Amino acid sequence: MAATGPARGRFITMEGGEGAGKSTQLRLLAEALREDGLMVVTTREPGGSPGAEAIRALLVSGETERWDGVTEALLHFAARRDHLVRTVWPALERGHWVLCDRFADSTLAYQGFGHGLDPEVIASLYRVAVGHFAPDLTLVLDLPVEDGLKRAGSRGSAGGGGGAEDRYERMGLGFHQRLRQGFLGIAAANPMRCAVIDAAASPGKVHDDILATVRARLPVP
Amino acid sequence: MAATGPARGRFITMEGGEGAGKSTQLRLLAEALREDGLMVVTTREPGGSPGAEAIRALLVSGETERWDGVTEALLHFAARRDHLVRTVWPALERGHWVLCDRFADSTLAYQGFGHGLDPEVIASLYRVAVGHFAPDLTLVLDLPVEDGLKRAGSRGSAGGGGGAEDRYERMGLGFHQRLRQGFLGIAAANPMRCAVIDAAASPGKVHDDILATVRARLPVP
Repeated sequence: MAATGPARGRFITMEGGEGAGKSTQLRLLAEALREDGLMVVTTREPGGSPGAEAIRALLVSGETERWDGVTEALLHFAARRDHLVRTVWPALERGHWVLCDRFADSTLAYQGFGHGLDPEVIASLYRVAVGHFAPDLTLVLDLPVEDGLKRAGSRGSAGGGGGAEDRYERMGLGFHQRLRQGFLGIAAANPMRCAVIDAAASPGKVHDDILATVRARLPVP
Repeated sequence: MAATGPARGRFITMEGGEGAGKSTQLRLLAEALREDGLMVVTTREPGGSPGAEAIRALLVSGETERWDGVTEALLHFAARRDHLVRTVWPALERGHWVLCDRFADSTLAYQGFGHGLDPEVIASLYRVAVGHFAPDLTLVLDLPVEDGLKRAGSRGSAGGGGGAEDRYERMGLGFHQRLRQGFLGIAAANPMRCAVIDAAASPGKVHDDILATVRARLPVP
């Protein structure tokens, strides 16, 4: 059945470190929900609206040290606000289900737990940019750091980006450990919103787990 | 005498509505302070550093309704943070005096008093992006709204932008009245930091008033 009328859609976010399989699982989940007859929008952060994609270009181009941590967080939340106002909130108003690759938990994990930015800064920006809105469900795809980096590394080699991937891995282990503990800590602190998914299994098994979690937490009317 | 050694420089901001003569007065003040032997940096917001100028391009280009009020404030404070980190704070560390055309009071006046954005949003963003730092002196150039619009209008005609200026004036009177009251309210609430300058006088008289205020408030060592 189609979600129509006054019923608001649902907002599901997919979080996790590198190589966790978020993109694949987002696509598989979208297909399954469409088979249920739902209208589904898939999107990503940073980006997901023309303005937010313009801000994304500032974030992903240029030198590594282009922005200090606070400026980078301000830009992430500016992009997030635009994405919500232009894409996510209108889609939810129309009753669509919105599946988003990364959301505010990634800012907290990467900038806060990973790079040491004061979590209160991120909480302040969340209140300003997002307010009381939050995902209906956040799927945290979890797997051992070594496995994730191995997957990301082989993906990098396949794409010919071995050098960059190698530099990532060399600087990365402590950072990625903090990232994983950050995501698990966020999930533990928000059990009503978050579900941790074992992403070390096969893609089919992970998809089954995700679908069972979505059906249990957010029953389709 | 040159400001050298451990002595930190001074940060002076120039605020006010359209047509108040900020650019002219900033230039005249910089010349006078340089004659005192000070190292002076003149800059402006939004902008004043390569990153902030890139963000400025997002703010000043595109359609009027490109950003909602909160997104626009986030982008202004992202640009401000970059400007502080890359330009203002290093210059002050070197003992230079920094004169800045517009700063956070403009965000509060334009976005808050002018467009109705919750002042607490702007205060939150100030704490995140600027912290406990503040200008040593803020010069609020004040004149009746009609006079300012007239000056801005004649400047617009001279530049061939009569159509745009006309649209501005038509939508503008209530907005510009709120803006003026906003700047005067900010000055009244921060008397130690701010000085209101009567900008209706001749440029030479306004410059004399500004210079007397700067010498009284911030004596050169």
